[in-house]
Amino acid sequence: MRTLFCNASILTMSETGPGFFRRGFLAVEEDKIVSACETEPAVWAPDRRVEASNRLILPGLVNAHTHAAMSLLRGYADDLTLQEWLFDKVFPVEDRMSDGDVYWGTLLSLAEMTRAGVTSFADMYIHMDRVAQATVESGLRASLARGLSDRSGERGIAESRALHAGWEGAGDGRITLMLGPHAVYTCSPAFLARVAEVSAELRLPVHIHLAENRQEVEECLKTYGVRPVELVRRAGLFERPVLLAHGVHLTLEEIKFLAGTRTTVAHNPLSNQKLASGIAPVDQMLCSGLQVALGTDGPASSNTLDIFEAGRHAALLQKVATGDPTALPAVEIVRMATAAGAGALALKDRVGRLEPGCQADFILIDLDKPHLCPTTDPYSLLVYAARAEDVDSVYVQGRALMEKRKLLVLDEERIMAECRRRAAALWS
Amino acid sequence: MRTLFCNASILTMSETGPGFFRRGFLAVEEDKIVSACETEPAVWAPDRRVEASNRLILPGLVNAHTHAAMSLLRGYADDLTLQEWLFDKVFPVEDRMSDGDVYWGTLLSLAEMTRAGVTSFADMYIHMDRVAQATVESGLRASLARGLSDRSGERGIAESRALHAGWEGAGDGRITLMLGPHAVYTCSPAFLARVAEVSAELRLPVHIHLAENRQEVEECLKTYGVRPVELVRRAGLFERPVLLAHGVHLTLEEIKFLAGTRTTVAHNPLSNQKLASGIAPVDQMLCSGLQVALGTDGPASSNTLDIFEAGRHAALLQKVATGDPTALPAVEIVRMATAAGAGALALKDRVGRLEPGCQADFILIDLDKPHLCPTTDPYSLLVYAARAEDVDSVYVQGRALMEKRKLLVLDEERIMAECRRRAAALWS
Repeated sequence: MRTLFCNASILTMSETGPGFFRRGFLAVEEDKIVSACETEPAVWAPDRRVEASNRLILPGLVNAHTHAAMSLLRGYADDLTLQEWLFDKVFPVEDRMSDGDVYWGTLLSLAEMTRAGVTSFADMYIHMDRVAQATVESGLRASLARGLSDRSGERGIAESRALHAGWEGAGDGRITLMLGPHAVYTCSPAFLARVAEVSAELRLPVHIHLAENRQEVEECLKTYGVRPVELVRRAGLFERPVLLAHGVHLTLEEIKFLAGTRTTVAHNPLSNQKLASGIAPVDQMLCSGLQVALGTDGPASSNTLDIFEAGRHAALLQKVATGDPTALPAVEIVRMATAAGAGALALKDRVGRLEPGCQADFILIDLDKPHLCPTTDPYSLLVYAARAEDVDSVYVQGRALMEKRKLLVLDEERIMAECRRRAAALWS
Repeated sequence: MRTLFCNASILTMSETGPGFFRRGFLAVEEDKIVSACETEPAVWAPDRRVEASNRLILPGLVNAHTHAAMSLLRGYADDLTLQEWLFDKVFPVEDRMSDGDVYWGTLLSLAEMTRAGVTSFADMYIHMDRVAQATVESGLRASLARGLSDRSGERGIAESRALHAGWEGAGDGRITLMLGPHAVYTCSPAFLARVAEVSAELRLPVHIHLAENRQEVEECLKTYGVRPVELVRRAGLFERPVLLAHGVHLTLEEIKFLAGTRTTVAHNPLSNQKLASGIAPVDQMLCSGLQVALGTDGPASSNTLDIFEAGRHAALLQKVATGDPTALPAVEIVRMATAAGAGALALKDRVGRLEPGCQADFILIDLDKPHLCPTTDPYSLLVYAARAEDVDSVYVQGRALMEKRKLLVLDEERIMAECRRRAAALWS
């Protein structure tokens, strides 16, 4: 099937070619982008033409750090200290979560993400085979990691191997795997080294929470005499591609070191603010050449999976934190939410840009709304004014997952009914 | 007309009675609330019953500080320093704005606010007779102030008098007036004293920008030897009810002084962050008993009029700024957006709560959405997960302005077309 989207504004996020067409044409063949141009392709006849004037087309958004199944805990524990939130509320409920809960909670998040224009996400949780199953069913793309810790030990490693063997490349390549050592306060140095070894063996990237809050850094210093980045470096993990969630408390020296590795930071401003973890030095990271993507963290801490929200918070927070209103401009936020997000998921050559040969993962924004009028700079519009509901249509691998706000793959009524029932049971 | 909304969740925001019913009934007669109860009213027969299960009803939101007509400048000047933003971009364009531009720009914002559940707003700008006209036509409620400065001088005072004479109480009481001395850097002490005098004479509250950024405080100290709050106090303005926009740079002593006056602060976290003005000490204000409401500031600086956004940013920013995740909890944000907002507009006894005798200004939230599932604590849901598009229906004085996302009063297609044309002309 060859489809031509006509007369749309197009943000390609290309690093080499033009980034924006005020009025252009996007040609899609099967699961791939053929071209994004100001004129119709000359020697390529579409089977279907889609009129897309008053629409902005851009690459699907990437949520580079979440725990999707925690949607079942949305609103369960807000306005609490991290200690109360984690130990009194979240951990006890998680102990009661079944693999069915993880499956349905993930489906709920997949429905939410589709509606918000998120086409790829990085997830770390438990029962990851059920997360993979839900993701394959949803049509979305994900990089999945079983959360690993001293507690799960070799059992977790074995599960990760099985996950890799069973699911890598599933859903026509939409599922990829990572290894997920949870954090330096749940994984010993020896276990981190073991993960590094398996990561090299299986050629998998690593997804880890690091330098999230001050307490983590202080306890690491107290226990091991080094800061978290150094502890992880010594374990050999930075010889691997790393998706580093948070990075709130990094020194400039650590940032410069990380910029020389294959690391992308997933910045989670919603969760970092809500849990009072701190403000990540994103401006410094980007100035130092360290890649930064955007995440929401799990919906139990951020309460949302919305990358429009995460991007807006990232931009505004960095301006007020640095005292510089020119810090982290809108164009950089859109890059973090698309191309850099693709890099974070180790999918740099496949998604995050609308270039010939890339996977056809893209979204249409409906510009015909009072709050998006007048339509001006597309980056500014996306970051400072647009909301999740402005996403009109969502395509992954050229397949429509939502058109005109109607979900075409997931049955959201059934998912919500099931999740209400399961959440009520879990919480009681 | 007597209407009974049935089986809805209801947040009354009452200070004396119960604040929340999981399943209740809202009785509305003409322009007033009759009752909000867990059971149907016994001796009151409705003409119309509206089934509202899976809906949350709450008072209409209040945007306590904006310059609505600046929607024509949305996205015109982002990611710039305040100096460049104001002097190189905004002021030159504002000089070219006609009264027709102000009328249409305000209508655009009225459409946006209706869609986002904002039923009342406080506005300060020029050509305020056209703002009043647009607001009366829209069905919304507003407290309007002609921006006053040394430059507009007695002409501005005369316009304010005419505005008061012509529009106070217009639209069945939906229009009220304030006096709008712009700021201490645009109004001399003598002029501020003159405004205080007229404010007392006309019995009007005062709407002023104060302590917005560090430069303002430093220049005030340099020029007058006192900080902005003291300068305004000496002019006699704090003997009047004051709507104080921003209050970013206030000392604890100033906060305690203001708490003893009839002042409400309008907190504008979006604009304060975007322009890198700073983080207002909202937690300190509330602990000191100073009332705080929520505003967006004009859409040229915040790019939006969305109080869901403003509330979410206010909550998260205060947590990370104080290092305390329990700071500014969700219930307080909802109060700021409703009851405290009504106080800011000097409408405390008329709107902001769903109590017998109050004006029937209320909104329905559609809870049947993946990102609002599971439905839990209503405050948490509104602040951390809900978005403007979740507003299903909007009523002011019992009149439906939007039902099932369809605008019933404003013609948004015509407004957007006109505003696109006018913005293009202004920007060129």
